[in-house]
Amino acid sequence: MLAEPIDSWLRNACREARDAGRQLAQAPARQRDAALVAVAGAIRRHREAIMMANAQDIAAYSGTDAFRDRLLLTEPRIEAMAAGVEIVAGLPDPLGGALAEWERPNGLVIRRVPQPIGVIGMIYESRPNVGADAAAICLKSGNAVILRGGSESQHSARAIHEAISEGLQEAGLPGSCVQIAPTTDREFVAAMLRATGMIDLIIPRGGKSLVERVQREARVAVLAHAEGLNHTYVDRGADLAMARTILANAKMRRTGVCGATETLLIDGAVAEAWLPVLVGDLRALGCDCRGDERARAIVAMGEAEFDTEWLDAVISVGVVDGLEGALAHIGRYGSSHTDAIVTEDAEVAGRFLAGIDSAVGMWNASTQFCDGGEFGFGAEIGIATGRVHARGPVGPAQLTTFRYHVVGTGQVRP
Amino acid sequence: MLAEPIDSWLRNACREARDAGRQLAQAPARQRDAALVAVAGAIRRHREAIMMANAQDIAAYSGTDAFRDRLLLTEPRIEAMAAGVEIVAGLPDPLGGALAEWERPNGLVIRRVPQPIGVIGMIYESRPNVGADAAAICLKSGNAVILRGGSESQHSARAIHEAISEGLQEAGLPGSCVQIAPTTDREFVAAMLRATGMIDLIIPRGGKSLVERVQREARVAVLAHAEGLNHTYVDRGADLAMARTILANAKMRRTGVCGATETLLIDGAVAEAWLPVLVGDLRALGCDCRGDERARAIVAMGEAEFDTEWLDAVISVGVVDGLEGALAHIGRYGSSHTDAIVTEDAEVAGRFLAGIDSAVGMWNASTQFCDGGEFGFGAEIGIATGRVHARGPVGPAQLTTFRYHVVGTGQVRP
Repeated sequence: MLAEPIDSWLRNACREARDAGRQLAQAPARQRDAALVAVAGAIRRHREAIMMANAQDIAAYSGTDAFRDRLLLTEPRIEAMAAGVEIVAGLPDPLGGALAEWERPNGLVIRRVPQPIGVIGMIYESRPNVGADAAAICLKSGNAVILRGGSESQHSARAIHEAISEGLQEAGLPGSCVQIAPTTDREFVAAMLRATGMIDLIIPRGGKSLVERVQREARVAVLAHAEGLNHTYVDRGADLAMARTILANAKMRRTGVCGATETLLIDGAVAEAWLPVLVGDLRALGCDCRGDERARAIVAMGEAEFDTEWLDAVISVGVVDGLEGALAHIGRYGSSHTDAIVTEDAEVAGRFLAGIDSAVGMWNASTQFCDGGEFGFGAEIGIATGRVHARGPVGPAQLTTFRYHVVGTGQVRP
Repeated sequence: MLAEPIDSWLRNACREARDAGRQLAQAPARQRDAALVAVAGAIRRHREAIMMANAQDIAAYSGTDAFRDRLLLTEPRIEAMAAGVEIVAGLPDPLGGALAEWERPNGLVIRRVPQPIGVIGMIYESRPNVGADAAAICLKSGNAVILRGGSESQHSARAIHEAISEGLQEAGLPGSCVQIAPTTDREFVAAMLRATGMIDLIIPRGGKSLVERVQREARVAVLAHAEGLNHTYVDRGADLAMARTILANAKMRRTGVCGATETLLIDGAVAEAWLPVLVGDLRALGCDCRGDERARAIVAMGEAEFDTEWLDAVISVGVVDGLEGALAHIGRYGSSHTDAIVTEDAEVAGRFLAGIDSAVGMWNASTQFCDGGEFGFGAEIGIATGRVHARGPVGPAQLTTFRYHVVGTGQVRP
């Protein structure tokens, strides 16, 4: 497709999305929730069609097995997708009530009320269920969304979108609340990124190169999900049994998720006694451990690369001088995503949580809990790693903005 | 100054700002407040030096009288600047307490806690007091700030910055919390706009061309203040006396502020009776009224330009068909800044507030109340007209972001 027809398709789609979004934003919560329940029903009804479309994508796919598995939709996965949409329907209304209300000395009453952001541009790769999650979160929060999935999952994405449209129409809401790009041309992404005044927020979800491209080129606000170079710090005050369980889970439960631990930091005071045990556990699970000089002096292993987000069964291991050493290491190498401390010492834990800059700080829990579902948001449209608007898992409440309603009795400004 | 030395100055300044900001963020509220009180004291002590520096700026200035007045610092204005900083000191701590806290079924306790954004880049024009306001708001909210004022006010800005540095040092906080650009070269602005990872948020405050340039060029997040094309809608349900007072104030109290009303919309049902009165009031105050066809059929006047932000003693006047007509007009021409309705009819007012998209919706009050001070924020660093992070007046609380602290007892993810 040429740039010109793409631009004109997008302009038109955004205009319709704006109108549909206004209707959605003013629809009562029960109608938005009914639409989500209808979408879930339609996904279940369209199961066969979605699986057939997915088979086309799988047949055309020639990449790695791990990636093919992310692409694959099975009956249980489609059921999980539908159930996820229903969970979002059951969440509290993020548009209900006032966020704050106060009265000024002159009698003006000021209310801060939640409001949808407007039109969201969702750019994602590979996993086709992301489209359903994103649509659910946007509908719940009163936002219209333009979905642009990757070319690998194009047939699946289109079949899922078909089901979403049907659900919306059943609930009496305009289908143009959720639209899908008519092409997987890269030029479409470029058009979205320059759609100032038409798209209010771009959410990229995918690999590093996609996110970097979006951040570099976008003329529209971006809620980006960059690296998750996460640390688990085992303090001298830790319960060793708990540390073993947490570390094994944080690294090895799933190695490809952004909440996975990439570096183990261990307090020098206990390293000699505990490091062999912790490394032994990880190795038994198939993890390749790579240490700094101090770690290698205790257990023989390869060399650590503290600035690598492995996303694989590999971990860097560093020995640090207590809490201060851990904070300095995380300050230098961390990506401000999720970092954990294991300790029974509340004072040390408090200083750790205050001292790191991470979107999510964990105390005595696995870093893999950094997830919208686990936070109680039903699903997530991404994990925000920037510093404005929202940080961490982005659920319906994080896709709202606010405005003020000021109620007077004729006040004028002196 | 060449680009290379500017980049290296900025890189260094941002590194120092990052470190200073971390110290500031962890400083107790009473220390940040003490620093603000010390800054106010230093501004008063440096009054003579500030006025002398300002005299240099005034002497070098060759523009309009209105602009010169904005540039001028008198003793009462310097006192107001110091008092403004003290008001910010007295506000509640935006970094105190948790924003939300909940427990998950697995026993994890999740806390959302406020956090400073980090390093703010403030780009402003003309009024030298903006530097003091911005510094006060940033210090209160634990943010470091790099100030880049316009060339017209460079001597004043430097003298004010001197006082701020002295106040910070008195309170035992690093002076590099608030830094000022060493040059008013436009290239410095360009360097700020591309300072990804060094500056977390750019706030431009000034004319349309400055804000547009920042929005176009920035590779860093921007909290922009664009147009204030504000409407006051006088509904058939209005109290005419109240409408007269509010309209006169909304348009004429100060015509150059962004909260000024630029368009009067009047309900067709009462236009014939009320428009002559309302136009008469405005004309008596020296306002040039310009109407659409229906308005001109009632009172003779020039032609309206509904897409012009006058920022002057001029107003566009439109006759609309009740609430729906007003909403359609504002939807088409409004800039989503501040819009007001005058009516005694609560149901109509509710529909108006829900139906407009404005950052601030006013009911029976002057649009000129759109102001950080009037909202109770002490001061404002700008009025946000975008849709993410914050909308409306931006005070200390709006310059924070949040993060999560998750407290477990050894939980791992199944």
